[in-house]
Amino acid sequence: MQDVARGLEGVVVAPTSISKVDGEKGALIYRGIDIHDLAQNSSFEEVVYLLWNGRLPSRGELTSFTTAMAEERAVPEPVLDLVRRTPRDSDVMATLRTATSALSSYDPDAEDGSPAALQRKARRLTACLGTLVAAIGRAREGHPPVAPDAKRSYAEDFLHMLTDREPDPVAVRTFDQALVLHADHGFNASTFAARVTTSTQSDMHSAVVTAIGTLKGPLHGGANTRVMQMLLEIERSGKQPAVWVRDALAAGKRVMGFGHRVYKVEDPRAVHLRRACKDLGAALGDSQWYNLSVAIEQEVRASKELYPNVDFYSASTYYMLGIPMELYTAIFAMSRMSGWTAHVMEQSEDNRLIRPRSNYIGLRDVAYVPVEAR
Amino acid sequence: MQDVARGLEGVVVAPTSISKVDGEKGALIYRGIDIHDLAQNSSFEEVVYLLWNGRLPSRGELTSFTTAMAEERAVPEPVLDLVRRTPRDSDVMATLRTATSALSSYDPDAEDGSPAALQRKARRLTACLGTLVAAIGRAREGHPPVAPDAKRSYAEDFLHMLTDREPDPVAVRTFDQALVLHADHGFNASTFAARVTTSTQSDMHSAVVTAIGTLKGPLHGGANTRVMQMLLEIERSGKQPAVWVRDALAAGKRVMGFGHRVYKVEDPRAVHLRRACKDLGAALGDSQWYNLSVAIEQEVRASKELYPNVDFYSASTYYMLGIPMELYTAIFAMSRMSGWTAHVMEQSEDNRLIRPRSNYIGLRDVAYVPVEAR
Repeated sequence: MQDVARGLEGVVVAPTSISKVDGEKGALIYRGIDIHDLAQNSSFEEVVYLLWNGRLPSRGELTSFTTAMAEERAVPEPVLDLVRRTPRDSDVMATLRTATSALSSYDPDAEDGSPAALQRKARRLTACLGTLVAAIGRAREGHPPVAPDAKRSYAEDFLHMLTDREPDPVAVRTFDQALVLHADHGFNASTFAARVTTSTQSDMHSAVVTAIGTLKGPLHGGANTRVMQMLLEIERSGKQPAVWVRDALAAGKRVMGFGHRVYKVEDPRAVHLRRACKDLGAALGDSQWYNLSVAIEQEVRASKELYPNVDFYSASTYYMLGIPMELYTAIFAMSRMSGWTAHVMEQSEDNRLIRPRSNYIGLRDVAYVPVEAR
Repeated sequence: MQDVARGLEGVVVAPTSISKVDGEKGALIYRGIDIHDLAQNSSFEEVVYLLWNGRLPSRGELTSFTTAMAEERAVPEPVLDLVRRTPRDSDVMATLRTATSALSSYDPDAEDGSPAALQRKARRLTACLGTLVAAIGRAREGHPPVAPDAKRSYAEDFLHMLTDREPDPVAVRTFDQALVLHADHGFNASTFAARVTTSTQSDMHSAVVTAIGTLKGPLHGGANTRVMQMLLEIERSGKQPAVWVRDALAAGKRVMGFGHRVYKVEDPRAVHLRRACKDLGAALGDSQWYNLSVAIEQEVRASKELYPNVDFYSASTYYMLGIPMELYTAIFAMSRMSGWTAHVMEQSEDNRLIRPRSNYIGLRDVAYVPVEAR
C-alpha cells in the first residue's frame, strides 16, 4: 500500500484490444495491423473504421462509413458562433476544449451511453473536429469559416476549410498519412485520462474534453509546436544545427522532439514522418526544413543516444503544409479523437472505476485552534 | 508488466500532503486536521485557505483572503452569455464544463503556470463556480442571473444568487457545512484525472474541466442526484421504506448512496450530513426526508452491512434547501473546486508525467489486405 508507483510508469492498468506499443522493438499496431502497413497503404477513414470496429472494412462498408462520417462534418451554428466570439488571442487548444464541450448541448445522443449512441457520437465528434480546428484557425486570422464539403476526404476537406484553396494532392496524401500515424497509441496520458473520466460512467463528450485538455500540455501533444519553435530559432541563430544542439545540451537545455517514455528504440511513426517531410520538401522544391531536421537528429543521436519521436518530423511537415504553428496540437487532437473514442467505447464495455490511492505524507493530529486564539 | 491493476484499486500513485482518507478507521483529515473539527467549527472560506496554504489562517489572513476571493465572484459577461444561450434542456454538468472551460479565455493568467498565477487562478475559479452554478440554475428556469455580493459569505451568496431571496441563517450554516465536507477527498477519480491532465504540464483550467467531466458520472458526483430520485420514488410508491429497500435488493437493484471504494466503516462525512439533515428538517418543521432516510439507512445496514456515503444525506439536505435536483452534482463541484486546485498546485510543484501501460490482448500479426481483395 505504501509502494508509490510514481507516474504509473510500467503499471498495467487495464487490458485493451485497440493498439499495442512495443517499446523494445519499436513497433506499433492498430487492431493487429502494423503501423508501417497502414501508413503506406491505408487512409484515415479506413483506420478510423478499423479502430472502432476491430477489423478493416469491406469496400461497401468503407464507402458507406466514409459518406456517413463526411455528412456529420457540419458544426452546429451556435458552436461556430462561440468560436467567433472567443477572443482571438485565446490558446487554440483552450478554444477547442470549450467548443468540443459545447457540442454536447446540440448532440441528441449526448447523455446516451448505449453502444449504438457511442458509435454515433464517436463519428460525429471525429467528423466535427476538423471543421472546428479549421474554423478556429480562420477565426484567429479574422476570416469566416469555410463550410465542409462531404465529397472530399477528411484530410483534403480540412486543408480546404483551413486555407479556402484547392489543396495540392501531395499535401493531402501527406496530411492523411500524418492523421493515420497519430490515431492511437496505447494508454498515453490523454487516452488514459479519457478512460478515467469514462470510468465514473460519465459521457463521451466529457471524456474527449478531458483528453483535449490533457493533450494540450507540452509534455504530450504540445511538443510538436515547441519543435517548430526550436527549428525556427535554430534557423534564426545562423549556427550550424549540430553546433546549436551541442551548445543547447551543454547549457542543460532540452532538445524538443526526442525520446519517449515507452520507446527505447526508434518511434516507428517517425520513420514515415521523416519520409513525408522529405517527399513534401522535394515536391515543394524546398528541402531546408528536412535538411535541418536530419542534421539535428544526427547530432542528438550521436551525443544523447535519443531517437526522434512522432513530434519531431510532424512539426516541419505541418510547417511545409502551411499550417500555422498554433494549430499543430489541435491537429494531433483531430486524429487522436478516433483513438480516444475507441478507448471510451472499450472502457464502457467492461467498466471499472479508476480510483487509485495516494500516500499521505502531510501533517497529522493538528488541533483545530479557534481563530481568536491563532 | 503483465500484472493488471484494474481500476488501480489499492495502487499508490503519488505522495500528497493535502488530505488523508483512512478507510479502515473511517477518518478524513485536511492538512492534518480532523474533518469532525472542521465540520463543527470552521467555514468554507477557512477550509479553502487551509487546503491551499497548508495551515489555518490568522484572523487578518482570513479577512483579507475572504475579501479577495469574494471580489473574484463576478463571471465575465461573455461566459454568462454563453450560459444564457445554452439550450435549457442541456445537462447541468455539461453546461458547467463548457462555461468553466470558457473562463480561461478571459483569465489573464490562463497559460501562466507559476505558483503565484496558480494561486490566483485557484481563487478565481473557486469564486466563480458558485456564480456559474447559480446562473445555470436560473437560466434553466428562464430567469436572469443575480449578481454576486462580495459582502456575503460564499455559502450565503450562492443561495441568494440561486433564489434571489434572503437565505435563512440555518440554511446558510447547513450549506456552508456541506461545502466544508465536500472540499477534498484524497485521490478520488475526478481529482486523480485532474492530476493526470496537470502531469502533461497542461494548464489549471484544463485540469478542472477534466475534473468536472469526471465528477459528472453517476459512479462519482452524479450519485447524489440519483439518491434524491430514489427518495422521491420511495415516497411515491407508498411502501414502507424498509419494504421498498428489501424489494429493491431482492430484484438485484442498487440502493444509491451506500458503500464506498475506500471506506470500510462509516464515511465520517455522513455523520455531519445526517445531523444537518435532521437539524434542517427540525428548523423547517418537516422531518419526513430525514425520517425516510434513516429508515432506509437502517434497512441497508441490516441487510447489506453497507454504510451511507457522503451522497446519501446530502441529497435530502439539498432538497430541503430548495436546490433543484439537477444542480446537486454541480454543487459538489463548487466545493471540490478548492480541492482540485490544491491538487493541481501540488502536482505542479513536483511533477511527473502520469502515463501507465495497458495489457494488449487483441489480435496480432494481421496482414493488411488491400480493399480490392477484401
